[in-house]
Amino acid sequence: MVVQPYFIEIEEGGIFMDLSGVKALLKDRFDLKMQDERHYIEAFTHSSYVNENQKLSLEDNERIEFLGDAVLELVVSNYLYRHYPEMDEGRMSSLRALIVREESLAKRCVECGFDQFVRLGNGEEASNGRKRPSLLCDLFESVLGAIYLDLGLDAIEHLMSLTIYPKIKNGEFTRLSDAKTALQEELQKDGAIQLTYELERESGPAHSKEFHVAVRLSDEIIGRGVGHSKKAAEQAAAANALTMLKK
Amino acid sequence: MVVQPYFIEIEEGGIFMDLSGVKALLKDRFDLKMQDERHYIEAFTHSSYVNENQKLSLEDNERIEFLGDAVLELVVSNYLYRHYPEMDEGRMSSLRALIVREESLAKRCVECGFDQFVRLGNGEEASNGRKRPSLLCDLFESVLGAIYLDLGLDAIEHLMSLTIYPKIKNGEFTRLSDAKTALQEELQKDGAIQLTYELERESGPAHSKEFHVAVRLSDEIIGRGVGHSKKAAEQAAAANALTMLKK
Repeated sequence: MVVQPYFIEIEEGGIFMDLSGVKALLKDRFDLKMQDERHYIEAFTHSSYVNENQKLSLEDNERIEFLGDAVLELVVSNYLYRHYPEMDEGRMSSLRALIVREESLAKRCVECGFDQFVRLGNGEEASNGRKRPSLLCDLFESVLGAIYLDLGLDAIEHLMSLTIYPKIKNGEFTRLSDAKTALQEELQKDGAIQLTYELERESGPAHSKEFHVAVRLSDEIIGRGVGHSKKAAEQAAAANALTMLKK
Repeated sequence: MVVQPYFIEIEEGGIFMDLSGVKALLKDRFDLKMQDERHYIEAFTHSSYVNENQKLSLEDNERIEFLGDAVLELVVSNYLYRHYPEMDEGRMSSLRALIVREESLAKRCVECGFDQFVRLGNGEEASNGRKRPSLLCDLFESVLGAIYLDLGLDAIEHLMSLTIYPKIKNGEFTRLSDAKTALQEELQKDGAIQLTYELERESGPAHSKEFHVAVRLSDEIIGRGVGHSKKAAEQAAAANALTMLKK
């Protein structure tokens, strides 16, 4: 069995993971008092670790990440709804996509210090998985899932008020509130690319027309959006593509 | 100004909407006591009504629907996570897509009786908008948004326990827990169609391989999914396509 410095496992009478580091982090940084360890054990266990330790019959963090993703979506939606009464649904949707996109959440995960505690398989560790954005993004959502199950939505709101909300307030995401720019940046990491936005159709009566736009990468549609102007529809399509890329 | 039998508007000192029908419905059917009317006025006001009554400067239900969508996603995710500990993330994701798809939510909206109270423009009313699934689906999410803002997550859980949860428990969605079947059904409403599932690539180590599948309608990719088997990846791709169709 692999034993890493930040946790200890004992097979007698069950599987334990030393969560004292996580516990101290939550208390000191976020003033959150962990109650039920089980959720955090699940959240900090990556599938690569489970695969390399099949005898232990551990649960990886994919299910709790599914929950955490929905928790995050709600609290961010709620924040935008309450704080930006003038912002229409399309712009809220774009802005939310920028806030919860992979790169953004991977950064939050490291800022919160969660990355140091995740249990990885040796292979994943060797290939620098602890720095991989998709793994870190998933981990961040998993930890949110654990906190939600353990301490409820108030604890999540508190964590958000110390991490993501101030960044929204400071315009960190609206600066590039442009989902089109963010999508371009995201994709050209892997080399030069060409995105095109195409008006597919218009619907609705003249005074409240809706535009349906698709965004295409080479010959493939990677997102679609609807809006009351072509510009809004393009932003929505880019936001949709960002969401799809993450999934 | 249009006055319909189930609401009254007075322009002096603001805009009012008679919510006594909604109030009685919430109390009698769901034992929920409305506190702040504003949220329900917003939820029950369709954009077509706002467009036809621009002098009133009303707010339509698109923003509150954005919030309600996230509320629904959380409570359904939470229910699946807690009640199906053996279900992996991919299947939870497929099942959730079936529960919250347009057709399903439109039915819930009518079952709850919300459809009778929405304010529509004359044009929308004349073209039978009150029976249009996309309008009803949006309305259902809007009302959830209003209940969430007014009475919190406990009230939502209570409403769900009287509407959607029993259907999940009875296997109403798992019967066609098959997202592929649901997608086929959804699309062929508009005539015969041909869906194909293509394996795009495999990733991960041999003992925990991941399959990446795309679902194609004619020459266009309408969804993508990842899973630990080809079958699971196909289900995930179909679920993804269902989600995309709704948006």
